[in-house]
Amino acid sequence: MNPKLDLVLERTIDVKPELVWKAWTTPEYLMKWFTPAPWKTVECKVDLRPGGMFHTVMESPEGQKFPNTGCFLEVVTNRKLVWTDALEPGYRPTARKLGTDAPFFMTAVVTIEPHGAIGTKYTATAIHGTEDGRGKHEAMGFYHGWGAALDQLVALAKTM
Amino acid sequence: MNPKLDLVLERTIDVKPELVWKAWTTPEYLMKWFTPAPWKTVECKVDLRPGGMFHTVMESPEGQKFPNTGCFLEVVTNRKLVWTDALEPGYRPTARKLGTDAPFFMTAVVTIEPHGAIGTKYTATAIHGTEDGRGKHEAMGFYHGWGAALDQLVALAKTM
Repeated sequence: MNPKLDLVLERTIDVKPELVWKAWTTPEYLMKWFTPAPWKTVECKVDLRPGGMFHTVMESPEGQKFPNTGCFLEVVTNRKLVWTDALEPGYRPTARKLGTDAPFFMTAVVTIEPHGAIGTKYTATAIHGTEDGRGKHEAMGFYHGWGAALDQLVALAKTM
Repeated sequence: MNPKLDLVLERTIDVKPELVWKAWTTPEYLMKWFTPAPWKTVECKVDLRPGGMFHTVMESPEGQKFPNTGCFLEVVTNRKLVWTDALEPGYRPTARKLGTDAPFFMTAVVTIEPHGAIGTKYTATAIHGTEDGRGKHEAMGFYHGWGAALDQLVALAKTM
C-alpha cells in the first residue's frame, strides 16, 4: 500500500466471509449492492478465473450508462479477489488511452478475512498508477461511494 | 489469439521444457539470450509469482539503455509464463501514458509444451490492445527479434 497512490476502505462487518464472497462474485447479487443508490448496476458479467472478464454497467438516475470491462487477476475463494481495468479479458492491455478516454486506471484488491465468530475484516484497496489518478478517484467520491456500496452489501447479505 | 491484435512465434525446439523454463526465469541465464546480439540485456530482476516484478534493461550497440518493468500474471512451472508491461509490480497500472511515453503496451504469454522425447513446442504470443500497437511491434522486428532470441536460448540451453 502506497498512501500517495492508493485508496483504502477497511471495515469490520457482521457478515460471514462466505457471504461477502458470494455477494462479490455472483452477478445477480452484485447487481443489488455494487452501486450506491440512486445509481444502479444494470449489467454484470463475471468469469471467475485469472484472465477472466469482470464487466459491469452502471446507470445514473438520468439513465446514462457507464460500462466498465476489466480482467480478474487473482481469485482466492472466500478470501481475496483482484481485478484491474488496465487489462481487458485475456490480459489484453486496455485500448482506452489514459488521460483521454479514461480518467484513470485502477487495480482493486478486496481481502476478506474472518473476524470473530461471524464477522469479516473487509479491506478494499484501489491501486492507481499516478497521484493524479488517485486524486481523481478520491474526488469522484471513493470513500463515500465504496462505503455506501458496502453498507448495501451488508444489508443484502443479511437476507441471503 | 486475435490475428488483428496479436503476434505469435511458434516453433518446436530440441530442448527440454525444464531448460526452457530455467532460461526464462533465471536472471543470469535470461541475460545471455533475451536480446538479439549485438544488443545486450544488462540488467534483469525476476520475482517469480503473480504480481511480482519482471525487470530488464536492454542496451543498444551504441550504449543506450532501454529499461522495461512489468508484472508477472501467471507462473506455471515448466509450462506457462504470462507477464505484462501494462501493470507494474503489485498489479499497479503503469504510469507511462500509452502513445506518448510508451509506443504500445503488451502482455506476453509463453507456453512450453513437451514435444517428443526431448523437445518443446514453444509458443510466444504478444497481445496488444490496438492494431496500432501490434503494427508498431511488428515494424520493430517482432518476428526476427523474438526468433533470433529463441535461437540464442536454444544455443544456451544446450550448454546448461
